Amino acid sequence: MALQRIGIIMNGVTGRMGMNQHLIRSIVEIRKQGGVALSNGDRLMPDPVLVGRNRDKIAALARAHGIERYTTDLEGALRNPDDTIFFDAATTQARPGLLKQAIAAGKHVYSEKPVATHLAEAMSIYQAAKAAGVKHGVVQDKLWLPGLRKLQMLNEAGFFGRVLSVRGEFGYWVFEGDLQPIQRPSWNYRSEDGGGIILDMLCHWRYVIDNVFGKVKSVSCLGATHIPQRWDEQGKPYEATADDAAYATFELENGVIVQMNSSWCVRVRRDDLVTFQVDGTHGSAVAGLTDCWTQSRVNTPKPVWNPDVRNTHDFFGDWAEVPNTSHYDNAFKVQWELFLRHVVEDTPYTWNLLEAAKGVQLVELGLQSWRERRWVDVPSLEA
Amino acid sequence: MALQRIGIIMNGVTGRMGMNQHLIRSIVEIRKQGGVALSNGDRLMPDPVLVGRNRDKIAALARAHGIERYTTDLEGALRNPDDTIFFDAATTQARPGLLKQAIAAGKHVYSEKPVATHLAEAMSIYQAAKAAGVKHGVVQDKLWLPGLRKLQMLNEAGFFGRVLSVRGEFGYWVFEGDLQPIQRPSWNYRSEDGGGIILDMLCHWRYVIDNVFGKVKSVSCLGATHIPQRWDEQGKPYEATADDAAYATFELENGVIVQMNSSWCVRVRRDDLVTFQVDGTHGSAVAGLTDCWTQSRVNTPKPVWNPDVRNTHDFFGDWAEVPNTSHYDNAFKVQWELFLRHVVEDTPYTWNLLEAAKGVQLVELGLQSWRERRWVDVPSLEA
Amino acid sequence: MALQRIGIIMNGVTGRMGMNQHLIRSIVEIRKQGGVALSNGDRLMPDPVLVGRNRDKIAALARAHGIERYTTDLEGALRNPDDTIFFDAATTQARPGLLKQAIAAGKHVYSEKPVATHLAEAMSIYQAAKAAGVKHGVVQDKLWLPGLRKLQMLNEAGFFGRVLSVRGEFGYWVFEGDLQPIQRPSWNYRSEDGGGIILDMLCHWRYVIDNVFGKVKSVSCLGATHIPQRWDEQGKPYEATADDAAYATFELENGVIVQMNSSWCVRVRRDDLVTFQVDGTHGSAVAGLTDCWTQSRVNTPKPVWNPDVRNTHDFFGDWAEVPNTSHYDNAFKVQWELFLRHVVEDTPYTWNLLEAAKGVQLVELGLQSWRERRWVDVPSLEA
Amino acid sequence: MALQRIGIIMNGVTGRMGMNQHLIRSIVEIRKQGGVALSNGDRLMPDPVLVGRNRDKIAALARAHGIERYTTDLEGALRNPDDTIFFDAATTQARPGLLKQAIAAGKHVYSEKPVATHLAEAMSIYQAAKAAGVKHGVVQDKLWLPGLRKLQMLNEAGFFGRVLSVRGEFGYWVFEGDLQPIQRPSWNYRSEDGGGIILDMLCHWRYVIDNVFGKVKSVSCLGATHIPQRWDEQGKPYEATADDAAYATFELENGVIVQMNSSWCVRVRRDDLVTFQVDGTHGSAVAGLTDCWTQSRVNTPKPVWNPDVRNTHDFFGDWAEVPNTSHYDNAFKVQWELFLRHVVEDTPYTWNLLEAAKGVQLVELGLQSWRERRWVDVPSLEA
Repeated sequence: MALQRIGIIMNGVTGRMGMNQHLIRSIVEIRKQGGVALSNGDRLMPDPVLVGRNRDKIAALARAHGIERYTTDLEGALRNPDDTIFFDAATTQARPGLLKQAIAAGKHVYSEKPVATHLAEAMSIYQAAKAAGVKHGVVQDKLWLPGLRKLQMLNEAGFFGRVLSVRGEFGYWVFEGDLQPIQRPSWNYRSEDGGGIILDMLCHWRYVIDNVFGKVKSVSCLGATHIPQRWDEQGKPYEATADDAAYATFELENGVIVQMNSSWCVRVRRDDLVTFQVDGTHGSAVAGLTDCWTQSRVNTPKPVWNPDVRNTHDFFGDWAEVPNTSHYDNAFKVQWELFLRHVVEDTPYTWNLLEAAKGVQLVELGLQSWRERRWVDVPSLEA
Repeated sequence: MALQRIGIIMNGVTGRMGMNQHLIRSIVEIRKQGGVALSNGDRLMPDPVLVGRNRDKIAALARAHGIERYTTDLEGALRNPDDTIFFDAATTQARPGLLKQAIAAGKHVYSEKPVATHLAEAMSIYQAAKAAGVKHGVVQDKLWLPGLRKLQMLNEAGFFGRVLSVRGEFGYWVFEGDLQPIQRPSWNYRSEDGGGIILDMLCHWRYVIDNVFGKVKSVSCLGATHIPQRWDEQGKPYEATADDAAYATFELENGVIVQMNSSWCVRVRRDDLVTFQVDGTHGSAVAGLTDCWTQSRVNTPKPVWNPDVRNTHDFFGDWAEVPNTSHYDNAFKVQWELFLRHVVEDTPYTWNLLEAAKGVQLVELGLQSWRERRWVDVPSLEA
Repeated sequence: MALQRIGIIMNGVTGRMGMNQHLIRSIVEIRKQGGVALSNGDRLMPDPVLVGRNRDKIAALARAHGIERYTTDLEGALRNPDDTIFFDAATTQARPGLLKQAIAAGKHVYSEKPVATHLAEAMSIYQAAKAAGVKHGVVQDKLWLPGLRKLQMLNEAGFFGRVLSVRGEFGYWVFEGDLQPIQRPSWNYRSEDGGGIILDMLCHWRYVIDNVFGKVKSVSCLGATHIPQRWDEQGKPYEATADDAAYATFELENGVIVQMNSSWCVRVRRDDLVTFQVDGTHGSAVAGLTDCWTQSRVNTPKPVWNPDVRNTHDFFGDWAEVPNTSHYDNAFKVQWELFLRHVVEDTPYTWNLLEAAKGVQLVELGLQSWRERRWVDVPSLEA
Repeated sequence: MALQRIGIIMNGVTGRMGMNQHLIRSIVEIRKQGGVALSNGDRLMPDPVLVGRNRDKIAALARAHGIERYTTDLEGALRNPDDTIFFDAATTQARPGLLKQAIAAGKHVYSEKPVATHLAEAMSIYQAAKAAGVKHGVVQDKLWLPGLRKLQMLNEAGFFGRVLSVRGEFGYWVFEGDLQPIQRPSWNYRSEDGGGIILDMLCHWRYVIDNVFGKVKSVSCLGATHIPQRWDEQGKPYEATADDAAYATFELENGVIVQMNSSWCVRVRRDDLVTFQVDGTHGSAVAGLTDCWTQSRVNTPKPVWNPDVRNTHDFFGDWAEVPNTSHYDNAFKVQWELFLRHVVEDTPYTWNLLEAAKGVQLVELGLQSWRERRWVDVPSLEA
C-alpha cells in the first residue's frame, strides 16, 4: 500500500456552500480518513491549495482546517504543474471564464452548478474541456441523497414493475422579510441578479430525472412571481422580479410522466422539504431527502369513496419504510471521491460538463415553454 | 305553519347513485324530517313519483321507502300538471333528450352531471330552459363536502390573505382486475363507452374552482393511459382505451394558479382521496373530503435544508385542524333543499344548466390542450 | 333466468360442525341468497333433506331453519332419485361405509374429513366413486381462509420471488380439565377413540401445502403426549393416550422446506391461533386465519446483533398489512358453492376423494416417521 | 484486603470479537473496577500481555487501553511463569495447536468457541488439559444473556411446572449483496472456508440446552442452502456452498422436546433476533436476548377458533414481562470473572473443554442426521 498525493486548486471556498460542503465535509474529511482507497490498494491523499481574494480570510480558513497552502494569486496557482485539478465554487457569473482559464492551463476541472446561465456558454466550456482532453465533473449532489439512493435501489430491485409517473414537490415558505427575518439571500428573488427558481432548480431536476427516472423528452413549465414585493438583508422593501414558483410537467422517453412543482411560496404538509412519489404497476414509493416509504401492489388498500362517512383510514399507515441498510456518506464527499478516482484511475464518471449543459438547457426550455405557453421538446446535445 | 306539497318526477333512481344519494339520502330523508323549511315558516313536502323501465324493481323500491307513486310511463308522468319538477339520474347518453322533453312539458328540471358529452348540446339544453322560463339545477355536490365548505369559510374569513396557488390531488389505485377484484366499472376505462378521467373529473373541477377559488381563464392538460390492459367484471382482459390520469394546470382570472392531478393509477400517501392545498400570503390550508388543516403565516416554521442531517421535523405537526362548528348534512340533500326553495320561493340558485355547460366546456378544452400540447383559453359562455 | 333445484341428503348435521358450518352457514345461507349463480345466468337452489337418528332433534333443527324435509330413514332417502347428492358429517368411524353406500346408490358424494382412518380404505372409497362415475368432494375449508387466500394472492403476484421455506405454528393451550373447564372433547386425547393431533391436523396440512406451497415429497414427524392425564366432560381423570403435539418437517418437490408444529400444549404468543410464515428471495409474509402481513426485500431491515445493548427495534413494525380487497365468504359455503356448480355444470373441482386420501396418507406416513425415527418419502397415489 | 495479581496471555485480541468483548469489555473493564472480588475479601487484578503478529497494531491497542505489556513472541510469553493463563480468540483453524502448546507449557487455558472443527480434536485438547491438571474454560456467553438468565430464574422458581417443550427461532435476513451491502463476512457462506450455520450455531445450542433445559439425548437436523449465490465483500458473485438454515429437533433426557430453527434466510416477525418459547404445565415463557415474557396457567386464555369471525384478541397482551431485578453485566465479563475465580479459588466452573467438545459433537451429529435422514442419538463423552 502506497500513499499517492493529488494537488487541488480550490477557488471560492470562503462562501457558505464551498466552505461547508466542499472544503470541510469533503476534502478535509477525506484527508482525515487517510485519503481515498484506490483499486490497487493505494490511498489517494488530496493536497489542496485554497484560492481567495481576501488573504486574511483564506489564511484563517486554511489554518482552521490544517491546510498548509493558500494564495490570492489564482494565475500563479494555475501555473503549478503539481496541482492538477481546479475546483470552482465562486459566483455563477465568473464561472465560465474561470473554468476556461483552468482548462487552457491543462487542469482537470470540477465545478459547482450551474456552470453557466446560458446553454451556448455551457456547451462551449464542455467543448473546450473535450478538446483539451482534460477530465471534468460538475456537482450533482442530489443523486447521493439517501432518499434518492433508496429510490434507485427500489428501481434496481424491480420493485415498481413498470414506472408510470412521478410526482415531485419541492419547496417551503421563504419569509418575505417584513414579519420574520429572511432565510435566503434577496438576490434569489431578483432576475437581474441571476435569481429565479426555474434557473435554480431545473438544473437539478434535469440530472435527477435523467439519472433516476428516464431521459427527459419534453417540458411544459409555468412560472409565477407569487410574491412581488419582499424585504432584503437590510430590511428594505424591493421588487421581486424573479419567478418564485414553477409548475412543470415532463414527458420522458420511456413514457413516464413527471409532474414537478417547485416553490418558495408553499407551506409544507408532506414528509420532507422535497418529496418524490413514484407510482409503478407493482408498487409505489415516496422519498424525501433521507427517508423513503413503499407500498407494494399486494398492500394497496381498496379505498371506499364515501363522502357521507368521515374517512377514518390512515393513508400513511399503508406504507412501509425502506430501512437504512448501508451507510450514506455526505453526498458532496461521495461525488468528490468518485471524481478523484476518475482522474487518477480513469473509473467511469458521467456527471460531467455535458450533463451540466443539459441542466442549463432544461432551464432555457422551461423558460421558453412558459413564454410560449406550450410544450417544448428537448433536443439532444450529444450528437 | 302550513304544509305545501311539491310533486317531483324522479327518473333513473334504480341506479346506485340515483337510489342512494338522491332518493334515499335526499328526498326520503327530507320527507322524514317533515319537509323543507320555507322562509314564511311553511314546510315544503316533496311528493315523488318514481319512473323506471322495470315495473317490479321500481315498485319494490317505492314500497321499501314508503313512496306511493311509481310508473313506467314517463310521458304520462310528464303530462301530470301536479308534478312540476323533473329529475334525471339515468344514463348520460339519454339525458339531453329527456331534459329537453321535460322542459318542453314545462317542468322545472334538476339533473345529475354531466348533462351532455358535448358543449353544444349542453348549451342547447340551457338555452331551451331559459327560453321556456323554467327553473333548472344540476348536481354539483362537491361544493357541500365539509372539507370544501371549510375552505370557503377560510376564504370568507380572509384567512389566506391573497391566495397564490392551489394544489389538488385526486385519485387512488383502481385495481387492474388480475390480482384483486376491480372496484370501479370497466366502462370507465374504455373511451368508446364514455370512460376517461378527464370527462369524469374536469366537470367537477370546473365548478369547484369557479365557486371556491376563482374563474378559470386557461387550461393546460396532459392526459395519459398509464394502464393499457385491464380485466373486466367477468375477469376477461380488455384494452383500456380511455385516459386514466390527467395532469392539469389552470390559470384563474384572479391570478391564482391551480395545479390539479387526477389519477386512477396513484397510491395514496396524503390526508384523503382528494386533497386541496391552498397557499396564500397570510396562511395555507389543506382540505380533504371532510377534514381541513391550516397553517397561518405566524405559525409557519423556518425549515432547515440540510441534507447531511436526517430531518426530524414533523411537517404535519405544524398544522391546526379546522373544527366542525356546524352540521354538515349530506351534500346531495343540501343541494336538493336549495333547489326546492329556489323553485318555490325563487331564492338565489347558481348551480344551473349554464354552470353545467361550463363543466362540459372545460372537458372539451382540456382534451384540446392535450391534443395540441399547449395552453388553451376558456371563452365566456355567459354573453 | 330460471331457478333450478338440486336435492341434497344431509347426514350428521346435528353435530356441531355439520350444523353450524354445513347446514346453517352454507346450505341455509345459499338458500337465503336465492341459490348459487350458474354461468348461464340460472340460479341453483339446494333442497336438503336432513337425516338423523333422533327424530325430534332432526325435526326441530329442520323447523328452526325453514327446511321442509327430514327423515330417520337413510336407506329410503338414498332411494329417492330426486336427491342426487349425499353429504356426510357424522362420525369418522361410520364414514367409509356410508360413503360407499351412497356411491352404490349412484349419488354424488360430499364429505367431511377425514374420509377414513387408513389409506387403504380412503383409496377404496375413491376407487368406488371413480368406477361409479359419480362426482365427489371433500371438505378442505382452510384453503378459503382469508389468510391463506392472501398468501395465494401473494404467490400469484410473484411477491415472494423464489419461496425458500415455510414455518407453521398451529395450536393453543387445551385445558387439562382440573383447573379450567375443557374446551375440546375428551376423545380427542384418547387414541383408542380416534384422537390424536397427527390424525387431526396432518390431513389439513397435506392439502394446504399441496395447494399453496408445493407438492409434499417427504416427511419427518415427531409426536408427543405432553400431558398424559386429563379430565373428561364429567370431570373424571383419564389417561390421555393420543399424541397432543407434533413437530413435523416436510420437504417439497420444489425444494421448499416446511417446518410445522401442531400442538394443544402451547401458549400463544403470535398473531393468531395458526400462523404461516413464508420466506422468499424477494419478500416474506406471515398469515393468520384472516390477516396477513408482508415484508418486501426492499423493506428488510439490517438488524444489529448486539447482546450488550437492549434491542429497541420493533420487529413487528417492519411489516405491512395485506388489506381486504375482496369479500371473503364463509370458507365452507364457498366450497359448497363450488361443489354444487361442479355437479351441475361440470366446472373444475380438485378437492376430491383422491385428495382426501392423500391427507390420510400423510397421517400414516407421519406416524411411520415417528415410529421409525427417520424421514419417510411420500409415494404418488395418482398412478 | 489485599490485591492479588494474575497474569494472562491474550492471543488474537486484534480481531473484532477478541478486542471488543474479551479485551475491552471484559479484562479492561475488570481492571477499571479494581479487579475481581474474591471470597476472602481480596481483589484479583488481571495483568494481561497482548500477543499478536503485527507489532504496530498490538502496540497501538495496548496503548489505547492502558496495557503495558505486549509482544509478538508467543513462545516467549508462554515461557514466563508469572503469566498463568492463556487465552485464545484467534482463528478456529489454529486454535487446537495453540491450546495444546499452552497446556504443555502448564498454563490454564481459556478459549473462544469452537475449540476445534472435529470432535476427536476437541476431545484430545480436553484430555491434554485433564492430564496436565490445568484449569480450562470455553466461552459460552449466551448463558449470561439477560433473556436466558430470566428463563433460568423461572426454572428455579418452578414457574413452568413440568417443562414440555421449547421452541427456538434464531435468525434474520443476511443480505445477498446484490441490492444491499452484506452484513456478515462471505466466508460464512462457503463450507470450504469453515462456513455454515450448523457449525456456527449448534455449538451454542448444545450448551444452552444442556444448561437451561436438560441434557440432549438425540437430534434430527435438516440443513439447507436456500440462497446458492451471494456477492462478496468486493461485490463479486460467488457460489454459497455452506448451509444457511438448519431445522433441528432435539429430544432431551428429561422428555422435553426442543424444536429449534436457525436461519440466515428468514425475516423477523417476533420479539427478538433469537427467541425461546418454553411451555410447561404451569406456565410458559418467551425470552429474547434481553427481555422475557410469561404466561401462567392461571392467565391462559381460552381462545375461540372461529374462522368466520376475524380474530380481535391480542395474543401478545396475555403475557406479562419479567422485570429486571438484577444488574446484567456483559456476558463475556461475567464468564471471565467466574473463570478467574475458578483458577485462583477453585470455585466450581462447568463451562470447560469437555463442554466445548460436546458442542462440536452436536455439530457432527447434526450433520450426520442431515446426511442419513434420521434421528441420531448423542453418546456420552463423560465416561
